[in-house]
Amino acid sequence: MLRVGFFQFAPKFGEVATNLSKIVSALRDAEADIIVLPELPFTGYLFQDRSELVYLSEEPAKSTTVSSLIALCRDRKFFLVTGFAERSDDKIFNSALVIGGDGVLHTYRKLHLFDTEKEYFDPGDTPLETIELRGARIGIMVCFDWIFPEVARILALKGADILCHPSNLVLTYCQQSMLTRCLENSVFAVSANRFGSDIRPRGTVTYTGQSQIVDPRGELVYRTKSEGEELYIAGIDVKRARDKWMTQRNELLEDRRPEYYTDLIGK
Amino acid sequence: MLRVGFFQFAPKFGEVATNLSKIVSALRDAEADIIVLPELPFTGYLFQDRSELVYLSEEPAKSTTVSSLIALCRDRKFFLVTGFAERSDDKIFNSALVIGGDGVLHTYRKLHLFDTEKEYFDPGDTPLETIELRGARIGIMVCFDWIFPEVARILALKGADILCHPSNLVLTYCQQSMLTRCLENSVFAVSANRFGSDIRPRGTVTYTGQSQIVDPRGELVYRTKSEGEELYIAGIDVKRARDKWMTQRNELLEDRRPEYYTDLIGK
Repeated sequence: MLRVGFFQFAPKFGEVATNLSKIVSALRDAEADIIVLPELPFTGYLFQDRSELVYLSEEPAKSTTVSSLIALCRDRKFFLVTGFAERSDDKIFNSALVIGGDGVLHTYRKLHLFDTEKEYFDPGDTPLETIELRGARIGIMVCFDWIFPEVARILALKGADILCHPSNLVLTYCQQSMLTRCLENSVFAVSANRFGSDIRPRGTVTYTGQSQIVDPRGELVYRTKSEGEELYIAGIDVKRARDKWMTQRNELLEDRRPEYYTDLIGK
Repeated sequence: MLRVGFFQFAPKFGEVATNLSKIVSALRDAEADIIVLPELPFTGYLFQDRSELVYLSEEPAKSTTVSSLIALCRDRKFFLVTGFAERSDDKIFNSALVIGGDGVLHTYRKLHLFDTEKEYFDPGDTPLETIELRGARIGIMVCFDWIFPEVARILALKGADILCHPSNLVLTYCQQSMLTRCLENSVFAVSANRFGSDIRPRGTVTYTGQSQIVDPRGELVYRTKSEGEELYIAGIDVKRARDKWMTQRNELLEDRRPEYYTDLIGK
């Protein structure tokens, strides 16, 4: 059994050290293989403008936040998948990092930016790839990526057993739709959402919590409440994601007819 | 308002004339623009083998079933989207026909065959296209096509306002998942399912009814019961499907990043 889960909490906007400390403290005794954190869990979400994001974002290689997380992973022998406001030269991405005791293993830069993110983040420029951790292949998607079925599908085609999904969800549709994402691809998904609000000069955004784990038949393993801090870890059998047979004659990925799908990649 | 709907009933296996008569009778007073019928509503579903299907299938151009439906459409001034066991030379397809008072306007041959269908049907060979009826653009998918997100997506990319979805659903997942299909593409869907069972020498298959209409925000307009005959027509505002804006900055189809989707069309 692979132990996977999430930590749901309410980051305080702009208080990177406080949020880091909260996470490190909450995960200090966790027994797990992979823990998913929300999107942008260190900075908060609702930036005033690009300059505020420039100020709060970090280069992972020079980030004390990241080095603290690496130390935590080394100490606790787990991997983290976390949202991260990633500076890279003159660009800033809404990214997810896969972190282990040896460092940052993988970076995914959100392909589909939501609403005001378009004002201050650069659109992601990393291909959808999967990475193997402890015999499980994981694929990363960030928040609004969920509404584009192409994302989960490509990750499944690249062998993902588990979709790790750092989120700051504000719409109410996602949690239910992730059941479909898992079913149509026969994969697990761990959606780590935040709760609470960002109350900022430009307005207030409230997040929907309800972080969840879904199995490859689209059944909910666990969903937590709309509010409240929670670390939740489940034991899952990754082999279930590799059985893509819906019936004795239907293998979900083999049954695709890609020769009829060419319109998906035209503009 | 466009009047669209479905007729849910329980076809009797192999009794083509009886099933046709049932449909014609049920639709005799319908006031509608487009009515969707289930998959294979004339023949029934659970064929014993290819030879039984050969016997029961028809060439649309020579079919008295089809000519009766054309007459019905002409008389009632509506269009039908209906499942059809379509013979074409030495091939037999699990098809859907779009029929109007002037004849058969469009044929779609199911791309993704389910379970035993693979034993006796030929896999579909028609591209996913849309067709305009009374100012609305409709896309056709048949039953198990629902689980492949590529199908609804391509139809939406080709302008579909309404997915017309003749079905003989046996799994319980589809009705809920169609909410996601509609939401992710901002389209309406009319899923016309059958109820009852085919009790045949090779076994028994029971269908799940619950025919439904879903709106472009993934909300259920109407879902009927698991059993029971029903003709249901709703008035819908097709313009709602053309508004693909999820937020002021997110247009669902424009926000796609097809340059990152090329893996979808590899094998």
